[in-house]
Amino acid sequence: MMNRKKLAAIIQERKSLLCVGLDIDLKLIPAGIDPLTFNKSIIDATRDLAIAYKPNLAFYECLGKKGWELFEETVDYIGKEHFIIADAKRGDIGNTSKYYAQTFFETYACDAVTIAPYMGEDSVTPFLGFKDKWAIVLGLTSNKGANDFQLQQTGDEMLYQMVLRKVASWGNDDNIMFVVGATQASSMIELRKIMPNHFLHVPGVGAQGGSIEDVLQHGITKDGGLLINASRSILYASHDLNFAEAARSEARKMQQVMAKYLS
Amino acid sequence: MMNRKKLAAIIQERKSLLCVGLDIDLKLIPAGIDPLTFNKSIIDATRDLAIAYKPNLAFYECLGKKGWELFEETVDYIGKEHFIIADAKRGDIGNTSKYYAQTFFETYACDAVTIAPYMGEDSVTPFLGFKDKWAIVLGLTSNKGANDFQLQQTGDEMLYQMVLRKVASWGNDDNIMFVVGATQASSMIELRKIMPNHFLHVPGVGAQGGSIEDVLQHGITKDGGLLINASRSILYASHDLNFAEAARSEARKMQQVMAKYLS
Repeated sequence: MMNRKKLAAIIQERKSLLCVGLDIDLKLIPAGIDPLTFNKSIIDATRDLAIAYKPNLAFYECLGKKGWELFEETVDYIGKEHFIIADAKRGDIGNTSKYYAQTFFETYACDAVTIAPYMGEDSVTPFLGFKDKWAIVLGLTSNKGANDFQLQQTGDEMLYQMVLRKVASWGNDDNIMFVVGATQASSMIELRKIMPNHFLHVPGVGAQGGSIEDVLQHGITKDGGLLINASRSILYASHDLNFAEAARSEARKMQQVMAKYLS
Repeated sequence: MMNRKKLAAIIQERKSLLCVGLDIDLKLIPAGIDPLTFNKSIIDATRDLAIAYKPNLAFYECLGKKGWELFEETVDYIGKEHFIIADAKRGDIGNTSKYYAQTFFETYACDAVTIAPYMGEDSVTPFLGFKDKWAIVLGLTSNKGANDFQLQQTGDEMLYQMVLRKVASWGNDDNIMFVVGATQASSMIELRKIMPNHFLHVPGVGAQGGSIEDVLQHGITKDGGLLINASRSILYASHDLNFAEAARSEARKMQQVMAKYLS
């Protein structure tokens, strides 16, 4: 149960907008540490600094059945005091999206799932009918490929602006968030004029090079309004057995910057 | 191992372009039949009539770990004489897409995976580096939501046309196919002028109402060039214990229409 009120409360309590991306990569975790122990150690090391965790499904699916067990155990271990995002980039015709929504909201106890908007309204709305659950729809992503379609002129606006505008009209700011990459922070000024209240999920700080200060300056709202993600820069801050300590130190640095904007 | 040559050969051999969508829905299968038995019965009833099977991941994921076992056992049961499509609509930044590709091409022995193009080039190219494996990228889908973005004017063309044009340039007609819904068959005339050789995966006949004759007339090529999908109309042709027989009968009807165009 993580509605806007509770989310705003934990943001104020922890003075944090930090989302830790759990991209568990067997090639990068320290030798001799099993994946579940790794995830649990990262979670324990960052619980008081983070408001959200975001397991990236690709890294779990590629492990087969064991990966889905790991995903389930990780979600259970996180518990109810953090916002849990299944980073799955799903989206299909209505009859199919309904089952994806059921997967992440009911089979697994996630609060939100990331959604690709290309297939339009009936691919998104099946995610909107669950109490206190959220669809986080791709708007403007942090990668180079954002230029290929998202930043193309579509009528009077760019495609991502059309996506934000139309998708926002299918739900409200209590069940929809948008992905806006940190590498696109300058776009947040315009974006906040159109949608002052929606939460934005912001990947792309850390390994991808976006500026956390720019994001905070242009994107923050009275509720916080941002879930700023870091994955590799926290998880793999050290490749040695002090990985959890190193992760905490990285998370702490980010949280301290956030705290300045939340006081 | 299902390259273009082998795909063209089984199309000619079976005089079929039929892809059977394995959307296993526990609410719709006959009482007393377990899901794996259901899938195996459908596969056995249609092996000589179909060239491809397409498990829709949403229906497996929502069953949790058991669903992934079912998916794995289903893929294994299909074997090497049919083209196997993981209908998963994946796509993410390059570092993540790489793991999705590994999931469906290596962890599971699928020949192809469906991809959502919204995140652009680096989200698609990780799927293109596997020998005799295919990315099936969403072009113009069969659902109502196709109007929301895909059919919007983007520069001189519609968004889906830009997607087809750009995505085609990132690979070739030996590693990329496109999804073009049967409900959009008239668009195939224009489309075949631009891409005469790409295989098209065509959902939307049957339950969604597209015309199989229109698709064949406008879309067929010398290799066949089409994978025409039917899911619910075949799987749930009967809700009784004669479901496999009823499925065969539906599949047979479609294959006979296809055979006329393949002689």
